[in-house]
Amino acid sequence: MSQPNGGTFDIVILGAGSGGYAAALRAAELDLSVALIDKAELGGTCLHRGCVPTKAMLHAAEIADQTREAEQFGIKAELLGIDMAAVNSYKDGVVARLYKGLTGLLTHNKNITVVAGEGKLVAKDTVEVAGRRYTGRNVILASGSYSRSLPGLEVDGRRVLTSEHALKLDRVPTSAIVLGGGVIGVEFASVWKSLGADVTIIEALPRLVALEDEDVSKQLERSFRKRKINFKVGKPFEKVEPTDGGVKVTIQGGETVEAEILLVAVGRGPTTANLGYEQQGVKLERGFVITNERLHTGVGNIYAVGDIVPGLQLAHRGFAQGIFVAEEIAGLRPPVIDEAGIPRVTYCDPEIASMGLTEAKAKEKYGDDKVETYNYNLGGNGKSQILKTQGFVKLVRQKDGPVIGLHMIGARMSEQVGEAQLIYNWEAFPEEVAQLVHAHPTQNEALGEAFLALAGKPLHTHA
Amino acid sequence: MSQPNGGTFDIVILGAGSGGYAAALRAAELDLSVALIDKAELGGTCLHRGCVPTKAMLHAAEIADQTREAEQFGIKAELLGIDMAAVNSYKDGVVARLYKGLTGLLTHNKNITVVAGEGKLVAKDTVEVAGRRYTGRNVILASGSYSRSLPGLEVDGRRVLTSEHALKLDRVPTSAIVLGGGVIGVEFASVWKSLGADVTIIEALPRLVALEDEDVSKQLERSFRKRKINFKVGKPFEKVEPTDGGVKVTIQGGETVEAEILLVAVGRGPTTANLGYEQQGVKLERGFVITNERLHTGVGNIYAVGDIVPGLQLAHRGFAQGIFVAEEIAGLRPPVIDEAGIPRVTYCDPEIASMGLTEAKAKEKYGDDKVETYNYNLGGNGKSQILKTQGFVKLVRQKDGPVIGLHMIGARMSEQVGEAQLIYNWEAFPEEVAQLVHAHPTQNEALGEAFLALAGKPLHTHA
Repeated sequence: MSQPNGGTFDIVILGAGSGGYAAALRAAELDLSVALIDKAELGGTCLHRGCVPTKAMLHAAEIADQTREAEQFGIKAELLGIDMAAVNSYKDGVVARLYKGLTGLLTHNKNITVVAGEGKLVAKDTVEVAGRRYTGRNVILASGSYSRSLPGLEVDGRRVLTSEHALKLDRVPTSAIVLGGGVIGVEFASVWKSLGADVTIIEALPRLVALEDEDVSKQLERSFRKRKINFKVGKPFEKVEPTDGGVKVTIQGGETVEAEILLVAVGRGPTTANLGYEQQGVKLERGFVITNERLHTGVGNIYAVGDIVPGLQLAHRGFAQGIFVAEEIAGLRPPVIDEAGIPRVTYCDPEIASMGLTEAKAKEKYGDDKVETYNYNLGGNGKSQILKTQGFVKLVRQKDGPVIGLHMIGARMSEQVGEAQLIYNWEAFPEEVAQLVHAHPTQNEALGEAFLALAGKPLHTHA
Repeated sequence: MSQPNGGTFDIVILGAGSGGYAAALRAAELDLSVALIDKAELGGTCLHRGCVPTKAMLHAAEIADQTREAEQFGIKAELLGIDMAAVNSYKDGVVARLYKGLTGLLTHNKNITVVAGEGKLVAKDTVEVAGRRYTGRNVILASGSYSRSLPGLEVDGRRVLTSEHALKLDRVPTSAIVLGGGVIGVEFASVWKSLGADVTIIEALPRLVALEDEDVSKQLERSFRKRKINFKVGKPFEKVEPTDGGVKVTIQGGETVEAEILLVAVGRGPTTANLGYEQQGVKLERGFVITNERLHTGVGNIYAVGDIVPGLQLAHRGFAQGIFVAEEIAGLRPPVIDEAGIPRVTYCDPEIASMGLTEAKAKEKYGDDKVETYNYNLGGNGKSQILKTQGFVKLVRQKDGPVIGLHMIGARMSEQVGEAQLIYNWEAFPEEVAQLVHAHPTQNEALGEAFLALAGKPLHTHA
């Protein structure tokens, strides 16, 4: 593929990650011409350095755990070890296959011109790449995000890592400290523990996965304790020092933890510096691009999508925003995306999935006495018992109103987010879901039981 | 617990399986007094000899397979063998735990009187158990089903088994013939193959799981071929003869298959003989109890629920019917259960889940040109690639109308039936589902992608 020579397009997109490439594909379907610019691989963080490779590692981790625990199920098996080179080659194979598919989709599309190189916004309608100018009747900024660090914390890629380094590690560390108990932190902690490392999470907030419902955090902490994943919450990190064998982390108050490596998982910052955004009048706040609810920046015909727009930094939000902006540009006037209607999943073991408001947020919004909750324990769910997992489905509803929050934790519960998402987005009343028949014996049935109970007609439920 | 002494109740229920006990629990919630009669354990076939123990075996089978294939994921593991006694004790442990929970729920309920013993309908309002009479203002027949056999096929429990025997087997057979390629047949075939047996399925109909969409059967056959599960379809069985090592089965045309055991999995018949039903005027057809759509038999105040009522023989249908009749008796006038809205799951590997009409049935009902379908291959779904599974999500819609069929196959796809079930029952248009955001990277996302494509805006989809 020869490098294109600049030109004029209906849309110029800067960044070919989830948000950017989804916009390109949808725009192309709508017969708009697109220049899709990226300095690295098509697919962005999610495919190459985020969602996909971490989930592959989590699956390898699951297999290691299941082999360890096989005897409980009557299967005589021995875990002989972790071949980290082979784990990486499995993981890279998954990425390569999806990458190949995506590259085919994008490069064979007659309406899409893929441009490899560092782009910079040089006019309200123009991105320059290696001296060539790509002019768009519309521009979409989709430059994505990077792993943040903290002041005083120098990431060296050897002892102090970001998730990008962690994904390339050629060994299982004997011990690891994970700085940050959010999604990325608990996922890596979960993987490394399963692969045999001694893991300690340090989180400044008072609980792990602090954005989730409190009951979810409690259950995760209980499960992690059982898995012997150490965690220290409620105190910020103070400093990191090198040691002979790795690093020593000091937490506020003086407590120290030592390990071979430190993973910095304190969130992701927007990649917006030195791209010409501010020079063209695009408004940034703490590095994020400010848009209206239709994702327009207020400057020329410039839109923004994905992790650079304040809100949930999730690939599927990027897809949705990309599709939205393409349709907006095509004049289809799509409905505004409801951020609260976007599903959230954390793929550690046990898995977490949630929709809508936590109990606390719901009470804050509607008042303590206007909110009802129900917590269905997976102890009563046959399939979860078969999997030997613990957890629950927690529902939050407005009294006499629709369900406004669904919170789930337990092995494989991530996949329940599909039904949860429909229930939330269609503003279903518990009574409406309760009358539908859920399949036995699935984990999905736990949702059915929770709804039966919340509708006042519990079935397999102890009072 | 002492045996009760007869008496008069709001409802007398004959059979404490899924349908009977669900009716009892719901009736008790509605403050009706209930006598719940069963000759065997509370929970019936599903809990003790059906759904639950088979799914536990399927999970043990999954662990065996994952250990075998662990190397593909970078995990060095050795499968040392199957400890069938331990598999059985795991399976029995799951059943025992759920049984204990259910027994607690039923026996501690002040409105429910549990009666152990063989009951017989001796009047339109009375069931007799060991000479004691239980009279009900209403009666619910819920006597369940049994494993059928075929003429000329003598089940001896040693060489020729039903699923009940198969669940108690103290060893993995070296080889097995499974007569019947329906749900029960393919589940046992899947388990035994995973545990190390050489398996052959014999099915008279032209394909495995013949009630599913044809594409599903094709995919299952492809997967089974890959797993080296043998199957012979399209010719009925002719005879079985004992051999030194087990059995020899002759198929129409003369072909023979030999194996250590033969599992007869040709369906389940209603348990309605010698229970006094016909004597009281209850109408039976081929052994099934005929009711109206409100599950009333037309005789006195006698209702029927579960496997004795013609239709899908599924535990969750039993639950739903039990709840329905309890509410009907309480005067709540519940809406009639839509049989087509009941989810169907087959838990073999790969798993199958479906809702509503197959493509063929839809075309039969609406006309060839009034039906549209879309088949999303799991090859494009990241999480399915991570699991290294193959399969698809197939949607069937009325042209310009709602989705009337969802058909899914692939590892772990059973759990997707939750969202499928809502979509079907709420008569969603593809466009309505397509605009919702599905979580990445889940298997659930495959549903989202299929809906995007069917709505005319495919994302990760090759043309």
